[in-house]
Amino acid sequence: MSDRRPVGVFDSGMGGLTVLSELQKKLPGENFIYVGDTARVPYGSRSEKTVQRYSLEIAEYLKKFNIKMLVIACNTATAYAEPLLKKTLSIPVIGVVDPGVEALLSKTHNQVAGVIGTRSTIKSGVYEKRIKLKNENIIVFSKACPLFVPIVEEGWMNHDATKIIINDYIKPMAGEGIDSLVLGCTHYPLLKDAIQKEFPFIRLIDSSIETAVSVSRLLEEKQLMRKSKTNGKIKILVTDLTDQMLGLEKLFLGFGGIKIQEVKIPEE
Amino acid sequence: MSDRRPVGVFDSGMGGLTVLSELQKKLPGENFIYVGDTARVPYGSRSEKTVQRYSLEIAEYLKKFNIKMLVIACNTATAYAEPLLKKTLSIPVIGVVDPGVEALLSKTHNQVAGVIGTRSTIKSGVYEKRIKLKNENIIVFSKACPLFVPIVEEGWMNHDATKIIINDYIKPMAGEGIDSLVLGCTHYPLLKDAIQKEFPFIRLIDSSIETAVSVSRLLEEKQLMRKSKTNGKIKILVTDLTDQMLGLEKLFLGFGGIKIQEVKIPEE
Repeated sequence: MSDRRPVGVFDSGMGGLTVLSELQKKLPGENFIYVGDTARVPYGSRSEKTVQRYSLEIAEYLKKFNIKMLVIACNTATAYAEPLLKKTLSIPVIGVVDPGVEALLSKTHNQVAGVIGTRSTIKSGVYEKRIKLKNENIIVFSKACPLFVPIVEEGWMNHDATKIIINDYIKPMAGEGIDSLVLGCTHYPLLKDAIQKEFPFIRLIDSSIETAVSVSRLLEEKQLMRKSKTNGKIKILVTDLTDQMLGLEKLFLGFGGIKIQEVKIPEE
Repeated sequence: MSDRRPVGVFDSGMGGLTVLSELQKKLPGENFIYVGDTARVPYGSRSEKTVQRYSLEIAEYLKKFNIKMLVIACNTATAYAEPLLKKTLSIPVIGVVDPGVEALLSKTHNQVAGVIGTRSTIKSGVYEKRIKLKNENIIVFSKACPLFVPIVEEGWMNHDATKIIINDYIKPMAGEGIDSLVLGCTHYPLLKDAIQKEFPFIRLIDSSIETAVSVSRLLEEKQLMRKSKTNGKIKILVTDLTDQMLGLEKLFLGFGGIKIQEVKIPEE
């Protein structure tokens, strides 16, 4: 059996393209449709209720494309809207948090772990709560790193300032003895090498990769795979198209040449 | 004659409080009412039409408080909506751009000047256009500095990374021989000392201070001053109230203890 329907992926902006990039590497035969809600980015500064409404609106919109599965490629939307989307939709829904949590549980040896993310993700406590649910003995240190997103968007992955900022944010956790660290923001995979260079002994958990692994497993389990020898198609839609996005698309996706279209998401 | 009606001030977020702070220092007898549109921040990533609509909605809302004057304490809103607000409202309207431009014209000696701001302000070209309108011989170098806002919001005014980032953004302009530099974003006055330390010979133009000077002059001219020996009152309203804002309020205003209220701005 082969299921040609696309996998739906959404994020508040362009950062979720790092997830799409890993999905495409892991599942080259699948068709993907991505929505970046760039007109309403950042979700991090919106209330829980608002993020739920936006997420539902996007899910509703994606249903028109007959998606077989929905990937929430946004930490804030996962924290606030994943349970609601799972309850509301009849297709499988996967967020970026649980795959990172599972990887952390298997990778930590000393049971002392770190989580970094945007202010809103860290404030939501979503990682800490879900880690403790699975294993309450794990000690978790969390740190909001609000400069990492603009650093990535500046393309300053190897900048002198970046090295100092990485140390400022992560050194205190390293001092507490964390042996693994979840990169809890879709922008952060681009800083993985820079962070690893400063902290070579910490195991970094890239939620984008882990999410692709989980999606692949779920498609297999539910017999939803597209079995094809030809590569699938990628469609990227945004709710507001600006010049800056066109640059970010290549940065996050790792390749260019995909036409980005602007679309309007109907409000509920 | 003494006019007790408040001066209305608005910004897309909390940064405009640096303008309010200078207004209050310059005009301690005046009553001020400030609206920070924190539910819809940042305006920088919205389209011109959307910023015009938001600005009109806020002006309409402030009219209910019987304001005698409107200060647009936001560079993006000034770039996109100042002409429209001036045309629509019957009270005087002042944005943050013209006061900065005027100060620049009087402070540059060699007619080579710089402007820094957010991506959207620099992209709009508002400073360059208005400088050239007044004196087309001035050579203007512009640079978007997207890391400055998150640095200020982290409170990293004296951080080692900040020094490197300031040099990265401003050294090329300094090499071009600019003798003066407009801080074209309401967050940047907090980086004034740090920038001045790296570039001691460049005259920094703080739009917040210059705007307060212009407002004072205009109130005098139009005989709208509140003549009082007692200090006026300050009211701060935001469209979305989060913990982070409560910290930023003291940082930008320079003093705390003012209760911030959340309000809803009716959509047009």
